[in-house]
Amino acid sequence: MDMRSEARQMKLQAPVLAATTVEQRNAALLAIAQALEAHKGEIFAANQEDMEAADRNLVSPAVKKRLKFNEDKLRDAVAGIHQLISLPDPLGRELLHRELDKDLELYKVSVPIGVIGVIFEARPDALVQISSLCLKSGNCAILKGGKETRNTNRILFQVIHDAAVEKGLPEKCLVQAELHNEIDELLSCDKDVDLLIPRGSNAFVAYIMNNTKIPVMGHADGICHIYVDKDADFAKAFPILIDAKIQYTAACNAVETILVHRDIAGAFLPELKKKMEEVGVRLRGTGEVMEILGDDSRENLMADSEFGTEYLDLIASVKLVEDVKEAVEHINTFGSHHTDSILTENPETAGYFMQMVDSAGVYQNCSTRFADGFRYGFGAEVGISTGKLHARGPVGLDGLVTYKYKLFGKGQIVGDYASGKSSFHFVDL
Amino acid sequence: MDMRSEARQMKLQAPVLAATTVEQRNAALLAIAQALEAHKGEIFAANQEDMEAADRNLVSPAVKKRLKFNEDKLRDAVAGIHQLISLPDPLGRELLHRELDKDLELYKVSVPIGVIGVIFEARPDALVQISSLCLKSGNCAILKGGKETRNTNRILFQVIHDAAVEKGLPEKCLVQAELHNEIDELLSCDKDVDLLIPRGSNAFVAYIMNNTKIPVMGHADGICHIYVDKDADFAKAFPILIDAKIQYTAACNAVETILVHRDIAGAFLPELKKKMEEVGVRLRGTGEVMEILGDDSRENLMADSEFGTEYLDLIASVKLVEDVKEAVEHINTFGSHHTDSILTENPETAGYFMQMVDSAGVYQNCSTRFADGFRYGFGAEVGISTGKLHARGPVGLDGLVTYKYKLFGKGQIVGDYASGKSSFHFVDL
Repeated sequence: MDMRSEARQMKLQAPVLAATTVEQRNAALLAIAQALEAHKGEIFAANQEDMEAADRNLVSPAVKKRLKFNEDKLRDAVAGIHQLISLPDPLGRELLHRELDKDLELYKVSVPIGVIGVIFEARPDALVQISSLCLKSGNCAILKGGKETRNTNRILFQVIHDAAVEKGLPEKCLVQAELHNEIDELLSCDKDVDLLIPRGSNAFVAYIMNNTKIPVMGHADGICHIYVDKDADFAKAFPILIDAKIQYTAACNAVETILVHRDIAGAFLPELKKKMEEVGVRLRGTGEVMEILGDDSRENLMADSEFGTEYLDLIASVKLVEDVKEAVEHINTFGSHHTDSILTENPETAGYFMQMVDSAGVYQNCSTRFADGFRYGFGAEVGISTGKLHARGPVGLDGLVTYKYKLFGKGQIVGDYASGKSSFHFVDL
Repeated sequence: MDMRSEARQMKLQAPVLAATTVEQRNAALLAIAQALEAHKGEIFAANQEDMEAADRNLVSPAVKKRLKFNEDKLRDAVAGIHQLISLPDPLGRELLHRELDKDLELYKVSVPIGVIGVIFEARPDALVQISSLCLKSGNCAILKGGKETRNTNRILFQVIHDAAVEKGLPEKCLVQAELHNEIDELLSCDKDVDLLIPRGSNAFVAYIMNNTKIPVMGHADGICHIYVDKDADFAKAFPILIDAKIQYTAACNAVETILVHRDIAGAFLPELKKKMEEVGVRLRGTGEVMEILGDDSRENLMADSEFGTEYLDLIASVKLVEDVKEAVEHINTFGSHHTDSILTENPETAGYFMQMVDSAGVYQNCSTRFADGFRYGFGAEVGISTGKLHARGPVGLDGLVTYKYKLFGKGQIVGDYASGKSSFHFVDL
């Protein structure tokens, strides 16, 4: 496949998809849901091939759980499509309607972004979710999934694409990339691809960000903090810290660094160490932390410069701070602006933290693991953004649209307004 | 000045500015307006030095008009600040308030972007406008103006900065860069600068876009089109085309390419040539256009590949198209997604054009020169964006904010929702 020519064709067909009605897009989504069920035999057979290859490659049970596409995953995927159908049309929303002058009317209307490239991990359900989110929002999408589910992806893509085109969506509404070198070609398509959403390892996302002129939405690092204030309720703190670390250790919203108010360190840290060890988590920390914990191992002793570490493993960094102010400074310096939580019963301290921490998500008394489109009630997400432009945090349908200005006149020229012959009156309608 | 250390300090002070109330920010703006008037003698004297240097450097009268900062410009600048004070606070707006579960409440709240670098042309009024827009929206700003107004910029910056700090805004809310090499340092501050807004020549903006990892908002090219449909009203068409070309030839929203429906070419083109020549505009075009115009000069004959040219001069490209469909394809291929206009009395043809042209502004029967924050009633603008992410078109206060999610819990952990012990109920409050 020639990625550049595919991207060019998509770009030219993107306005056609953008012009479809929500009825057409919903009809296509319904047809996709039905086609997935009708072809489930072939889909499961393809997935069986991928699972056998995974066995041959001695893939871990945890990863195999993600590669698997069975009746349960199909049911969830189809339910997700039906939920998407029930959501209101994100397109054509009138964001502004203003009369600039008599017979000169300005509209600001929501429109799709256009052509989006999504590069995602080896999870067949992600292909279904991403392609249906893009179609609902009227965006053409180039999809590149993980190679470990190549067979499953191929049949899923075929079924979804054909159902959509059968219902009248343009041929190039969805394109699949299968080869790794096609990613590099995709990165050079800055004239035709409006947005890239890479998901996967830090190193991979950083590579994408550093090697393209196309805007990138997503996150490389997920260095999330929990600050245990002197007014924290220990009974809440331990379950939250354990959940945030081990409920899904490899997730971007798992906690990496625990900041503890110095006043409670003596009482809190030994208990934290005990409870964390019970669930297999090792604590690392600064000299004073190690001293309180009675740990003189060299590998657990941390230098300041190490606090930017994302373990994605059963390890956590621990540091003492004077107060919430120092906690905020630490987070704004070493964090990745993803999600950070304060544990305190003091509303004033919490208010300061939530105002001053410069992250997409700031939490009080709950686990950082809540940072997720499904848990926010967005239905689904294409990713989580740590950037501040456009969408921030979990990105659902809202993050896949932009807007355009439409101005309807009757022959007006700017010269008449510059000379004072005409003047604007700005009335919102 | 060490730009990297300045940017670092701004980044750390940005949450302090973000936490100010709108009353504090408005009080600072009022103090700035008063200080500008109180120091007008020094300001005009500094401007006089810049104007004398311009004379020595034989700067053209058109450019000198922009360099000049006199009573009129001061009055407009001060009026702009008062208008900004009257606008509602863009910060702290509740964009979502949702109960995810009992005692687990999610808020989506508007917040400033943080640290913004603005590099702008030699226009002293731009410095006043940009700094006041940034302060109203709670953003720290690094300001680098054109060197031709160095003396004026220096005193304006001093007056504005000191008035803001006097009213309690943080010391590093505004920083001025004066040396060209500081721009390159600024480009490397991707950890601390959240957004760059470059204004100026295409080559300069393209240089910025290609040499930084910081997100850039703005536009390099402004290749705007006007399509004259077969159902166009010629009485409207000629004034619009002339206004769009000559009212401010060097502006990004001036028209560069005129597309004409083939059916009317014989009647329209000779008249267009005559009227354009009267105002000093030269037409270039394809072979068939030149034939109709009876022009056999080689310099006016255009190859297809030349239609991406932005003249910013008294020259326009002309091409014939079969219909509105071909016009849209031409614009989506050769345009810069800035602003494009159709001249037609046929609402169906106009509707097709405005739906299918993939630009920030799509117009019917008016001049492309209307693409401007002031003319849209936004009060002021920091620039015009041809990108599709975040802000598009003229960018005012709305484009200088993002949002953060705040989640308030009472000890909730994700494990309880994953196991089915708890479940989300998603109620918007």
